[in-house]
Amino acid sequence: MPELRKDPIVSRWVIISTERGRRPGDFASAPVEVPDPARNPFAEGNEHMTPPEIFAFRDPHSRPNGPGWQVRVVANKFPALRVEGELEKEGHGLYDKMNGIGAHEVIIETPNPTLQLEQQNVEGIARVLETYKIRMSDLLRDARFRYILIFKNHGRQAGATIGHPHSQLIATPVTPKRIREKLTGAMQYFAFKERCIFEDILRQEIKEGERLVYENAGFVAFCPYASRFPFEIMILPRRQSAYYQDIHPDEILLLADMLKVTLLKLNKALNQPQYNYIINTAPARYPRQGYWTSIDQDFRWHIDILPRLTLIAGFEVGSGFYINPTPPEEAAKYLREITV
Amino acid sequence: MPELRKDPIVSRWVIISTERGRRPGDFASAPVEVPDPARNPFAEGNEHMTPPEIFAFRDPHSRPNGPGWQVRVVANKFPALRVEGELEKEGHGLYDKMNGIGAHEVIIETPNPTLQLEQQNVEGIARVLETYKIRMSDLLRDARFRYILIFKNHGRQAGATIGHPHSQLIATPVTPKRIREKLTGAMQYFAFKERCIFEDILRQEIKEGERLVYENAGFVAFCPYASRFPFEIMILPRRQSAYYQDIHPDEILLLADMLKVTLLKLNKALNQPQYNYIINTAPARYPRQGYWTSIDQDFRWHIDILPRLTLIAGFEVGSGFYINPTPPEEAAKYLREITV
Repeated sequence: MPELRKDPIVSRWVIISTERGRRPGDFASAPVEVPDPARNPFAEGNEHMTPPEIFAFRDPHSRPNGPGWQVRVVANKFPALRVEGELEKEGHGLYDKMNGIGAHEVIIETPNPTLQLEQQNVEGIARVLETYKIRMSDLLRDARFRYILIFKNHGRQAGATIGHPHSQLIATPVTPKRIREKLTGAMQYFAFKERCIFEDILRQEIKEGERLVYENAGFVAFCPYASRFPFEIMILPRRQSAYYQDIHPDEILLLADMLKVTLLKLNKALNQPQYNYIINTAPARYPRQGYWTSIDQDFRWHIDILPRLTLIAGFEVGSGFYINPTPPEEAAKYLREITV
Repeated sequence: MPELRKDPIVSRWVIISTERGRRPGDFASAPVEVPDPARNPFAEGNEHMTPPEIFAFRDPHSRPNGPGWQVRVVANKFPALRVEGELEKEGHGLYDKMNGIGAHEVIIETPNPTLQLEQQNVEGIARVLETYKIRMSDLLRDARFRYILIFKNHGRQAGATIGHPHSQLIATPVTPKRIREKLTGAMQYFAFKERCIFEDILRQEIKEGERLVYENAGFVAFCPYASRFPFEIMILPRRQSAYYQDIHPDEILLLADMLKVTLLKLNKALNQPQYNYIINTAPARYPRQGYWTSIDQDFRWHIDILPRLTLIAGFEVGSGFYINPTPPEEAAKYLREITV
């Protein structure tokens, strides 16, 4: 019997369709393309092919925009938003617009074009996570920006146009809609229960165990109760903190371990699936009124991992009504049992 | 310079990226597959391959579940929801679920496996639209259902698994999230302005003209100001009405003309793109409180057409933050200038 399940934070109903129940082997996946070394702008030695370096982890005597780096951040050559100018908001009849001020950066995770994030050692992954934190903190000093969206498109189906391992960052003067929905849901839950919804979710997932994927001292990974997509995973920190950029150094290492294990499990279960992950964090300069809770106690930053196994149907995006053919309990069981 | 634009109904910000500006020829499209006649369950003569007929437009002396039909409605063989049973809602710790009660039907639009909807004459398309109305009205008599979602997946990329022209219907005991957001947005606008937001949008689109695609006596088609996808189109009726099923007979013919012209324009501009369309209508049994407006005056049914030209990136679905590489004014200009 299929079930309708409600996302506890954003109140979205999802069909968990047992009728169409699909197992890991039912999903086809395409290998990630290896870029041509001569035309790969992210390869070591090709630094001149990208816009100038914004930040890098480098060998002590190496020079910016040359070889000798471990992680390198550059502006996106085809930015969705532009960093220059003042923010201007204006109406247009009943519509509202602002000029496209923002930042769009690429975080090149390694000089090695075929070393995927999860294949790096924990220190290597931690360097990438530290880079996210450094760029986020730096950009939030700019009073024009309200949100720093950090995400990874892995594979062409997931939106990556270059095969070399990289993540992206978009700084925007607005808060993305789904983040706003999560903030509102978390705030309303706190106002009603006087408890953080993320803490309650964590407790229930640990107690029940059937949706758990992996735990370590700092983080818990599980398949959400109302997953929209097969093998969707949420990574939640154990410590209450609304802002990713406030992560502690020891937590960065634990998050690196968490990402490594979770992604390796997905790789093994689903034969190197393409995926996206997104860091969900609290926005800066976010006005709150009418409630006596604070974002620091009611919202918690987290990561969503979305494997791209099924087509995202237009009707799903258009209606907000998702059909998930793999119950999260089954997905989690497969992932839990895989040793990496 | 890119722009950030806000959807006036659901308050979603979208990046309209001029930097990446893409023209119709930049999008590749794959032809829709022609099904093998012997294995096509929707072909005339293969009626035994589907679940029993629920409704059909048929020749006077033909029999149900045999040949001689023009439009045929059957249950989906792999339904996402089940029609049998009582609706049971229950909590599960902090989570909420209900059993997957609902209906999932297929509307076979023609016995001809290669005659696409827009290639039918206006009377043929009107028969399909009339079928939507009949099934919607019939299913809404069932007190368990709150919403009837009618949509079309055209092409494999858009989610269709069978090439024979068909639409789908899902009756659910809940209102899809995006419909709820639109209802709330429209209600808040009315409470503030004492005007229907759909009427205001219609006026502004007609007055400005630059996003218009096609108009007839009953309907207006335009590319929405904050389109999430290239060549996205909204079809809005001129007459205020919250419920699709209240459409008048003369409006059905005008909507058939509207769909035919709009889809033919898309075909010509984009070389037979795959697409989804969705009917947005007001739910039944939708409680309203705290406002003095009514759904009949503040919400208007409409159709969204979403061509599948770009990948829907996971980060976009995950964050609710969309980047559209084709300004709606440019898309509308192309479509307006095409004669069909």
